[in-house]
Amino acid sequence: MSESRTSQKVEFHNLDDASDGLLRELAPGLTTRIFAGERAMLSIVTIAPHAEGTLHHHPEEQWGVLLEGSAIRVQGDEEIPVRKGDFWRTPGGVPHTMRAGPEGAKVLDIFSPPRAEYRKPGRGFGDQ
Amino acid sequence: MSESRTSQKVEFHNLDDASDGLLRELAPGLTTRIFAGERAMLSIVTIAPHAEGTLHHHPEEQWGVLLEGSAIRVQGDEEIPVRKGDFWRTPGGVPHTMRAGPEGAKVLDIFSPPRAEYRKPGRGFGDQ
Repeated sequence: MSESRTSQKVEFHNLDDASDGLLRELAPGLTTRIFAGERAMLSIVTIAPHAEGTLHHHPEEQWGVLLEGSAIRVQGDEEIPVRKGDFWRTPGGVPHTMRAGPEGAKVLDIFSPPRAEYRKPGRGFGDQ
Repeated sequence: MSESRTSQKVEFHNLDDASDGLLRELAPGLTTRIFAGERAMLSIVTIAPHAEGTLHHHPEEQWGVLLEGSAIRVQGDEEIPVRKGDFWRTPGGVPHTMRAGPEGAKVLDIFSPPRAEYRKPGRGFGDQ
């Protein structure tokens, strides 16, 4: 194989590189860039100040890391405030959404297995 | 079920809470705190300045996010400099390690499926 085919450089990205990843608008004020692997999928979500998603659920396990800002994580029937550096697991099937604080929020979401709905461009949380 | 049994609060953590997670010393100057889910496992690795791990590989898919500092990511037969905000995928079976820069490094590693070796306390990268 040629060097270009075997290079690992294609596996490297940056959280702030807006030109990289598969763009998806989840809801008004919520956009994400998606990176799919074989066993896990990363989704870098930007939430505008005070914007919020819609409560939804899916069978895939999900983890979230609050990279910037503040938010309320709605999970199950609870509303849990989160700040930068907080992270959480959302078991498959548990309803969830987020509501950003006054400065907005940036969240790294991890899905395992990858969500099939997020492998293609589109809008929404994939359950509609 | 009682409210305490159903609360999602046990699923919430913080990257900087040194008292949380399963502690593991990977190599001299490399420690991690591990959080296991059903489909994915998070590992928050702290690397001392200029410390480095040993080249190793495992069948699980791995993703890494450089949270702080700088480092050289060794992956396959390449050495790729990474800075804060960079992230990368390491396909299963690809040899890898890291070497921290002068200010050290903090890395979020994600494994899918969870690495069985990391479900219990111990030392090393789990292949020894």
